[in-house]
Amino acid sequence: MLISCSKLRLTLNDLNGNTQNKYKILNDPVYGFITLRHSILLDVIDHPYFQRLRRISQLGLSHLVYPGALHNRFHHAIGAMHLMQHAIDEIRQKGHEITHEESRAVSLAILLHDIGHGPFSHALEHSIVSGVSHEDISVFIMNRLNEEFDGALDMAIEIFNDHYEKRFLHQLVSSQLDMDRLDYLRRDSFYSGVTEGQVSSERIIKMLNVSDDQLVVEEKGIYSIEKFIVARRLMYWQVYLHKTVLSAEFMLVNILKRAKELSSRGVDLFASPALSFFLREDISKEEFLSNPDVLERFCQLDDYDITGAIKVWASHEDRVLSILSSSLVSRKLFRIKLQSEAFKASTRGEIIEEIKRKYDFNDEEAKYFVIQEQIDNKAYSTAAQNIKIKYKDGSLKDVAMASDHLNLQSLSEVVEKHFMCFPKDLDIKL
Amino acid sequence: MLISCSKLRLTLNDLNGNTQNKYKILNDPVYGFITLRHSILLDVIDHPYFQRLRRISQLGLSHLVYPGALHNRFHHAIGAMHLMQHAIDEIRQKGHEITHEESRAVSLAILLHDIGHGPFSHALEHSIVSGVSHEDISVFIMNRLNEEFDGALDMAIEIFNDHYEKRFLHQLVSSQLDMDRLDYLRRDSFYSGVTEGQVSSERIIKMLNVSDDQLVVEEKGIYSIEKFIVARRLMYWQVYLHKTVLSAEFMLVNILKRAKELSSRGVDLFASPALSFFLREDISKEEFLSNPDVLERFCQLDDYDITGAIKVWASHEDRVLSILSSSLVSRKLFRIKLQSEAFKASTRGEIIEEIKRKYDFNDEEAKYFVIQEQIDNKAYSTAAQNIKIKYKDGSLKDVAMASDHLNLQSLSEVVEKHFMCFPKDLDIKL
Amino acid sequence: MLISCSKLRLTLNDLNGNTQNKYKILNDPVYGFITLRHSILLDVIDHPYFQRLRRISQLGLSHLVYPGALHNRFHHAIGAMHLMQHAIDEIRQKGHEITHEESRAVSLAILLHDIGHGPFSHALEHSIVSGVSHEDISVFIMNRLNEEFDGALDMAIEIFNDHYEKRFLHQLVSSQLDMDRLDYLRRDSFYSGVTEGQVSSERIIKMLNVSDDQLVVEEKGIYSIEKFIVARRLMYWQVYLHKTVLSAEFMLVNILKRAKELSSRGVDLFASPALSFFLREDISKEEFLSNPDVLERFCQLDDYDITGAIKVWASHEDRVLSILSSSLVSRKLFRIKLQSEAFKASTRGEIIEEIKRKYDFNDEEAKYFVIQEQIDNKAYSTAAQNIKIKYKDGSLKDVAMASDHLNLQSLSEVVEKHFMCFPKDLDIKL
Amino acid sequence: MLISCSKLRLTLNDLNGNTQNKYKILNDPVYGFITLRHSILLDVIDHPYFQRLRRISQLGLSHLVYPGALHNRFHHAIGAMHLMQHAIDEIRQKGHEITHEESRAVSLAILLHDIGHGPFSHALEHSIVSGVSHEDISVFIMNRLNEEFDGALDMAIEIFNDHYEKRFLHQLVSSQLDMDRLDYLRRDSFYSGVTEGQVSSERIIKMLNVSDDQLVVEEKGIYSIEKFIVARRLMYWQVYLHKTVLSAEFMLVNILKRAKELSSRGVDLFASPALSFFLREDISKEEFLSNPDVLERFCQLDDYDITGAIKVWASHEDRVLSILSSSLVSRKLFRIKLQSEAFKASTRGEIIEEIKRKYDFNDEEAKYFVIQEQIDNKAYSTAAQNIKIKYKDGSLKDVAMASDHLNLQSLSEVVEKHFMCFPKDLDIKL
Repeated sequence: MLISCSKLRLTLNDLNGNTQNKYKILNDPVYGFITLRHSILLDVIDHPYFQRLRRISQLGLSHLVYPGALHNRFHHAIGAMHLMQHAIDEIRQKGHEITHEESRAVSLAILLHDIGHGPFSHALEHSIVSGVSHEDISVFIMNRLNEEFDGALDMAIEIFNDHYEKRFLHQLVSSQLDMDRLDYLRRDSFYSGVTEGQVSSERIIKMLNVSDDQLVVEEKGIYSIEKFIVARRLMYWQVYLHKTVLSAEFMLVNILKRAKELSSRGVDLFASPALSFFLREDISKEEFLSNPDVLERFCQLDDYDITGAIKVWASHEDRVLSILSSSLVSRKLFRIKLQSEAFKASTRGEIIEEIKRKYDFNDEEAKYFVIQEQIDNKAYSTAAQNIKIKYKDGSLKDVAMASDHLNLQSLSEVVEKHFMCFPKDLDIKL
Repeated sequence: MLISCSKLRLTLNDLNGNTQNKYKILNDPVYGFITLRHSILLDVIDHPYFQRLRRISQLGLSHLVYPGALHNRFHHAIGAMHLMQHAIDEIRQKGHEITHEESRAVSLAILLHDIGHGPFSHALEHSIVSGVSHEDISVFIMNRLNEEFDGALDMAIEIFNDHYEKRFLHQLVSSQLDMDRLDYLRRDSFYSGVTEGQVSSERIIKMLNVSDDQLVVEEKGIYSIEKFIVARRLMYWQVYLHKTVLSAEFMLVNILKRAKELSSRGVDLFASPALSFFLREDISKEEFLSNPDVLERFCQLDDYDITGAIKVWASHEDRVLSILSSSLVSRKLFRIKLQSEAFKASTRGEIIEEIKRKYDFNDEEAKYFVIQEQIDNKAYSTAAQNIKIKYKDGSLKDVAMASDHLNLQSLSEVVEKHFMCFPKDLDIKL
Repeated sequence: MLISCSKLRLTLNDLNGNTQNKYKILNDPVYGFITLRHSILLDVIDHPYFQRLRRISQLGLSHLVYPGALHNRFHHAIGAMHLMQHAIDEIRQKGHEITHEESRAVSLAILLHDIGHGPFSHALEHSIVSGVSHEDISVFIMNRLNEEFDGALDMAIEIFNDHYEKRFLHQLVSSQLDMDRLDYLRRDSFYSGVTEGQVSSERIIKMLNVSDDQLVVEEKGIYSIEKFIVARRLMYWQVYLHKTVLSAEFMLVNILKRAKELSSRGVDLFASPALSFFLREDISKEEFLSNPDVLERFCQLDDYDITGAIKVWASHEDRVLSILSSSLVSRKLFRIKLQSEAFKASTRGEIIEEIKRKYDFNDEEAKYFVIQEQIDNKAYSTAAQNIKIKYKDGSLKDVAMASDHLNLQSLSEVVEKHFMCFPKDLDIKL
Repeated sequence: MLISCSKLRLTLNDLNGNTQNKYKILNDPVYGFITLRHSILLDVIDHPYFQRLRRISQLGLSHLVYPGALHNRFHHAIGAMHLMQHAIDEIRQKGHEITHEESRAVSLAILLHDIGHGPFSHALEHSIVSGVSHEDISVFIMNRLNEEFDGALDMAIEIFNDHYEKRFLHQLVSSQLDMDRLDYLRRDSFYSGVTEGQVSSERIIKMLNVSDDQLVVEEKGIYSIEKFIVARRLMYWQVYLHKTVLSAEFMLVNILKRAKELSSRGVDLFASPALSFFLREDISKEEFLSNPDVLERFCQLDDYDITGAIKVWASHEDRVLSILSSSLVSRKLFRIKLQSEAFKASTRGEIIEEIKRKYDFNDEEAKYFVIQEQIDNKAYSTAAQNIKIKYKDGSLKDVAMASDHLNLQSLSEVVEKHFMCFPKDLDIKL
């Protein structure tokens, strides 16, 4: 029997009726202290759907390269909310009205913006929950929470979906300069120790303003924006798309694909009930979003289900599954070749042959041991809205046009790269 | 079938024969960069026994109070090794010989000093592996590694066990001022965001010296030592023994005890093979240390087994197990009353009665819902060696006697506290 | 002709009538950004009396030991005002009223709390302006500014003098836990690089509250207070009363005393008009505070007058003056012997004899080359009000009594030390 | 009579014969601790020529905008030497020989690279010591020191002048990626609080290598180099060429020009002997470099002479001098208009007319109240050597060509700007 999160919550509310010990100040190594300004923020944080984010790491397998990068989505969401509160103060101080209710709503919207993330999202979306994006699930969960909270999230959801009349509030949640990015760049840089990716979130917020219902940056902030864009690119290539991390993440994709394949064949696999469900079933987006039971099961899923299973699979009798799993668990990762040009059409086939020979695998098995993909530094980007600079004379200009000394356009160009991964012991030269 | 770690490693070595991509520099948010000076350090780090420390958090459940405190024992061990390298440089520069081989050995000793830790060590040692300390296991694992590495750890083990002739090397690994402490205080303070616990590890190392084969601190370092002792006490009471953390950790102890109890009765429980083994078996210290299979299974155990199981147990039909588990998973923790005086003898009984009434439990069940313990701020301390101050005239004095302005003795006194935990919805006033 | 500061200001106002470029945000390496909330704060900062603080270093000659410690009183005063604004927010949020006008007044009071400092205050008060404390001068200057600002500083002055009804406002300006101390400890630690002196000003402010019109610290802040007191002591002995700094400061005292002596004898000395005046005249406290011209001249005096003159005096024909001056300029400082016990009565005489012999000086000259003083770590302390801890049950306790684990009383005891300084080339063993 | 620095030093050596208290570790807020590895480094630091750098601020008048930016050239030189020691370690570890003597020499070279700076160098070179660059003076002083130190600086001078055979050593002292820049960017960013200018000096040094006797950066360091170049540009426009700083610095130029003009007319001016000399005399480069007395006088000159005089000049009877001086002292700065395009040819004349009318000045006087200049972001750059990237295959490429995603060429283009300054009370619209 599966207890739904919402039911669970009722039980626990009953169990822990009194809540006098509510904390309102949180320690954060990045910002020092974080204060919660609205009591509903704490209520939402206390909800099992949100507590679950504690068990979902922000950067997936990046910690295999940057051992400090262990922070989770729970902390990121709260950090982004903290920056939102500063942004609200700043914009208000510049004479633009943000009502108390709007302040609460936009804080809720940013707090929940990532609520739909599953464990190792990018890997999961390539394997066992393909076809459903975390953005879709975020909206779905917000609606569920809104029911539980009797409509208290109405405005937050409007803002999140960009249906609210003050559109700059949505831009604070989701745009090229939203509080999500400001926090994650700063936080990821902090925890990874890649100090060069550090973004001066505080300074950028001081430079924010609103013009014609658009979020803009004041002229004197242009250097900070340049710096922000450079730092973001640096973080992409040095952390998010680090080649060793790519290798690990695509090994994870292949492990999950193999597990799903075996599961579909009826092979017995150690797995938590939630993971078991997603390995067994092929869920369409429609089914996901219409069947509450699916969502409940998804909300049970986190890093512990995935990593916990892979550890056990390292001893599974299926050699594909066990070799891949034990390799990932012990950080024996595939070699990766990353390059600007596409690979020759024949390369993949040659590697497959070598794998078959070396490991005595058939074609179907061998394909799990070679990965050929391409990536670009917009891979993780979600929004296309450009950053506007506001000049002293009141005019607005796209940042790419505004700088007289840096070709910001070039900075924002998409760079595409190709890569190929395969076991290190193969006798392959690329 | 359970594949042993060491066998696994051979397979992987075979698989990944070439190791040209060995990294030698690590990013660390705390110290910036960490360089590995001896190739064997990297070999040990790459070993599955050591990689396993990636999955064991340093501070257990403290992240429920300090959301940033997610760092693991892997990073701490490497950090302590980094400080060791600085300490070696400093002591050498002051004219004391540390040979290349000793440098390697003492670096290995500190790297492995915590290798025997299981997940949530303090909780585990109170429940499913009672009777075997992590120190015992550390020595055991080091010996196993030493076999694998053909005796390359001989001197490291001698130093660790304080059997090596230069005794100050052991003191660098384990004493009141060892590199273990310097790193964990600094790192725990950093990740928790409790900046007041920050220790100037760099400065303390600059003040280290050796006198009569003893590790000593130079006279001018006395303020740094005062500061170190105050910071350490602060970290104990504010982080390690934070009352909410205590409540969570002892709830975890009771969950594991209940699971073991159910397991012994033959009740079916979701668990990884490794956890299953320890729930089922009662392992004596002798058996643990003599049966290699037990150690192999222990090395399979980490945070993912424990947390992964508790998440599933939240829906178990045993009400004791499911209520405790779901409460911990959703951070609905017991109320805790912490005080200097002992509780009245009758208090515990009164609470038990209230629990039985409220939850319709029998005596045996109810006892899992009340926790009565006492703690002191030496709880985590392992060594009794005092810090010696070396004066300019060459004389040594115990730091507690050395300061002319602070009663350091009082700082080092053990403070004992008593606490009682129980569900928040009970109608109990303490 | 001496132009008075206030006249000068009128001229300049005339010259720079428009003030559209008023800055309101300041960069601060310590806190990031500082925002000025009241326009009068900027008016006061722009006043020549306040701009003058840019030319008065916070730590006098400490930079001879800590090369980074070059920050000035201008920055400290603004930093303390910044903390005040945070403290106001915190106290308001806890339900205590601080009106807009009170907020402005208490911000002004802290901004101006050190306005009466001259260059190298402690040295100056021992030599050329003896008998008049910087606190007296601060009040005097505030009154002058109040006239210029048409009474806008009335309430600020009341608060500063502790005549305002809400007495906790005065305690924020001047008490054991005032914003002055929080800023200077943090700032001095930051710039000197003595990180161990770092005080968590942000956290302490979060713990502030008001009870019975007294500033109190909440119970959970007790560890922060312990840490604050330890850090403060550490800063005293390691920075403020560092023995090399003491040696330099008392050499400066002797240089100024010698210059005054020579001046009184009619010897010609290079000096700015302002310094010239104070070397020539013996100003009583009464005269200082009653004669506006004296104050004007005092306000012309800063580090540049003193150091600029000493550089020239290094080539003066008076050997006492030139040797002392050139030694200080080139950082060839007296040897200093610092100890807990008093020196033998005969020691000073023996040193004097040695100086006379070595340098061919007479008694009167030789006395400038030996310094015998005593100091204590309350030397710079001004207030005697103790810190009160507020318990959850509402009771208040002195912090020295409140801690159950640290003898805070011992920490607050005055420690007295004795020292003797003399040229390094003397053949003296102490 | 003017005592020469070198004579002064002999006297002092005599006075302070014993030097047992030599410090070898310095506190630095930027790097923590700095250790001096060679005793001659301390000897040079103790020399009056070097101690003099304590009285020369690194950023001139930037502190009028960034109040924390008070650091001096003394600390910068030592910081650059600290980085040099790290760079030596890194390059040695990569297998390139740097002998003990070379290590000492290159450390001396970087320590002394700025020894020729006078107070407010850029202003001074535009006014009273025009025609002699600080680089010329540096070489001159190094030669003088070399005589005093009996040739111990021979190799340091060869390296500085790029006459030493291992040319990469010179590049560490002076090139696009020299230790000078790494330190000043980091230090200026730190003290100004402009955190976005922060350069990861530690990481860049880890990426350094030597190839064909050239200093190169390893391929993986390319993002750090991008970041470095962006940070450098940001610092130029936001700090070094900040428009308010430009206004202040050119006011200072005009003050000194006016003083020189008055001096040449025989008007009496308060000034230290050293300043007096340079106001009175017109020194050609040849005379400067050939006449030891001129150098001695130059070495007497520092910020205290300049600022100390300007304070007194604020009351001078010459209205041009007194208005300019009092304005600068009280931070009543000229308005500045900074723009990409050149100003119309007539603009300056119109402003002059308005100044004459408003202040009742003649043409000759009025010209001190308008400043028309142009600047570019290479203004402070000294070297043209490009940064080379070394690829894994051993090939080298100019960084501007190396990046496949950022037009680094565009980043390195010179940007030129024009500005005009004049009193704020003029009725001028630009």
